[in-house]
Amino acid sequence: MRRQNLSLVLRQVAAHGPLSRAEVAAASGLTRAAVSSLVEELMGAGLITELGAAPSGRVGRPGTALALNPQGPAGLGAEIGVEHLAVCAVDLSGELRACARTETPNRGRPPAAVLADLAALLRVVCDEAAATGLRPAGMTLAVPGLVGTEPGMIERAPNLDWTAVPAAEMLRSALRETGSDDLAALPSEVDNEANLGGLAELWLGEHGRTEDFVHISAEAGIGAALIVGGRLLRGARGFAGELGHVPVHPEGPQCPCGARGCLEQYAGEQGVLRAAGIEEPGGDWIASLAVRATAGDTEVRDALERAGTALGTAVAGAVNLIDPGAVILGGGYAELGQWLLPGMRRELAARVTVRPWRDHWLAVSALGRRGPLLGAAAGVVRAIVEDPGLLAGR
Amino acid sequence: MRRQNLSLVLRQVAAHGPLSRAEVAAASGLTRAAVSSLVEELMGAGLITELGAAPSGRVGRPGTALALNPQGPAGLGAEIGVEHLAVCAVDLSGELRACARTETPNRGRPPAAVLADLAALLRVVCDEAAATGLRPAGMTLAVPGLVGTEPGMIERAPNLDWTAVPAAEMLRSALRETGSDDLAALPSEVDNEANLGGLAELWLGEHGRTEDFVHISAEAGIGAALIVGGRLLRGARGFAGELGHVPVHPEGPQCPCGARGCLEQYAGEQGVLRAAGIEEPGGDWIASLAVRATAGDTEVRDALERAGTALGTAVAGAVNLIDPGAVILGGGYAELGQWLLPGMRRELAARVTVRPWRDHWLAVSALGRRGPLLGAAAGVVRAIVEDPGLLAGR
Repeated sequence: MRRQNLSLVLRQVAAHGPLSRAEVAAASGLTRAAVSSLVEELMGAGLITELGAAPSGRVGRPGTALALNPQGPAGLGAEIGVEHLAVCAVDLSGELRACARTETPNRGRPPAAVLADLAALLRVVCDEAAATGLRPAGMTLAVPGLVGTEPGMIERAPNLDWTAVPAAEMLRSALRETGSDDLAALPSEVDNEANLGGLAELWLGEHGRTEDFVHISAEAGIGAALIVGGRLLRGARGFAGELGHVPVHPEGPQCPCGARGCLEQYAGEQGVLRAAGIEEPGGDWIASLAVRATAGDTEVRDALERAGTALGTAVAGAVNLIDPGAVILGGGYAELGQWLLPGMRRELAARVTVRPWRDHWLAVSALGRRGPLLGAAAGVVRAIVEDPGLLAGR
Repeated sequence: MRRQNLSLVLRQVAAHGPLSRAEVAAASGLTRAAVSSLVEELMGAGLITELGAAPSGRVGRPGTALALNPQGPAGLGAEIGVEHLAVCAVDLSGELRACARTETPNRGRPPAAVLADLAALLRVVCDEAAATGLRPAGMTLAVPGLVGTEPGMIERAPNLDWTAVPAAEMLRSALRETGSDDLAALPSEVDNEANLGGLAELWLGEHGRTEDFVHISAEAGIGAALIVGGRLLRGARGFAGELGHVPVHPEGPQCPCGARGCLEQYAGEQGVLRAAGIEEPGGDWIASLAVRATAGDTEVRDALERAGTALGTAVAGAVNLIDPGAVILGGGYAELGQWLLPGMRRELAARVTVRPWRDHWLAVSALGRRGPLLGAAAGVVRAIVEDPGLLAGR
């Protein structure tokens, strides 16, 4: 019960702070005495700090304003991309406080080598965060692959050419080997980048968004995160969201997955580049396409138009099936929105007919490709705010 | 708190009865005294009954066995089909105690006339149930149409040619006009038949099934119920499960919904009959196709084979997207399983490739077309067992 009340107080301060103890008591329904005792404990754990006298229009002695501690526990996000590594640290309020990124071609590299590089990057970012008084409380690793129900394990990452990689354990080893025993001891999780991109949109995206939406993202593959009632739908075995392998034209081109006519054949990296007549984009295919489309390259624009249509067909099926309140185009797709959206809107209008659909329910994410990394870090601090008891004993 | 404990005791008896008070206390963690007091209240409400001495291998005075009261509150299910009306009553344990069905062509009939007929059928079934000591506690109406978030309202039922029908209110009026004020006063809900078929599978289907599955059913249209973590996924606006309008061949035949190549064009009533070269089936199209296919009609078998393939394509997309633990072929489709399953299995094997899929995760419902009606009635009593406080004051 006390654990629940700690969370209640902390969530009030997180959502509406700075707040005086009296305001927390009024909002939470707890007594003033109970709030004082709970605040004491939260301050002891470094989660809450006193800002000084709270502004108050009311009669009587002004309360001291409470806020989330900007030097409290931090969340670490780490990301393995096909072409890059990235790490960031956010404070309790989810604000970005340190980050670093390196461009490294990871496709086909041994997992141990990639995770050693990531361990070094984690060290750099943590030292930078520590200099501003932040202490890392946990980390989440975003990966471009299938993460099933076994904790810390990447089951398959076709775009890295990895299978059954115990990523969390290997990262811990790499951290220990480089003397980062403090980071190796942190609780860590591994999740699919598309899932984390969707959660980032839920937690950090624009206000007023529904808690039921589909977030679509693309790096090398195409992934979707299904957010239902404010929670990520992971599926019975942890593999929900494989929008990239929804059939669009059942007799279409052969997909490396073994099926024919999957969405990825039309709207994934290889499919779009092939349609645009580009042999080898060199580096960042999304940026490369955006540059050419902006310059008026009609072949690229047509390819993106067709990709948008295929995305729209697949998403129309998803909308008919799960009835989301919105569809958000995120990840790399966000940068191609102006060329993808017209085809998507046309398909949605034509195929979502037995129930309401409004054009503006399809929107572009403001987080874009930063989503998965920010979502990874934000998830760590959100878990602490939801249940500060998680920190007890550490 | 007491309300929660009433539920705890009742759920124990429902799941594991007959049980002695001592056994309930041991299983629930409540004291023997608390259990006795709670049982007293549940017996007073007619929810629990004493069966006499409980069989017990233990030393000491044998306890009295407690069981759900077979003469307690009943759940009423009512169903409006395109070609029939049906009503049933189940007791607290979900056992079918009375039912009646009439064949009536409802397509295009005014809602008031259909609901008047249904009111008469409800009277008959309730009188039959009352003769065995059951008292109806609530009813749910299963309808072949879209039910949104407004309680009691059918938004669209294309196969009945109904739009914006306040079904719950109209049924209450019809009951009052025929002197059934007792039934008009009951709490009532309206839900889509595909949703109720899926819930019936969850509640009454074969044991050991996953709590994450997709239940597919067909009457005139095609509907799906998405069960996620033991709950029905209704969607942001209440319209989830429109599998029938998932695109299968984007440039396929025009669907009355306005789109092209929807699943219904291949696996719905009109689509299958057209493919089988049947102009006018007369009555029950499912039964008619089953008879012809059993007799070896190759045109019908080929049409069902193609329907199964289209179902498999659409379901493969759904499986990639939401990762259910199983797919259950229910409703009328259950009777066509032997002809539909081969194509479905082939498509699922070919298109669900980036994550595990086992052939036996696709199965046929044992409830079949009885599902929606049984699910409607069972939902009423399940709500009472989950929260017996619902009955308080009545």
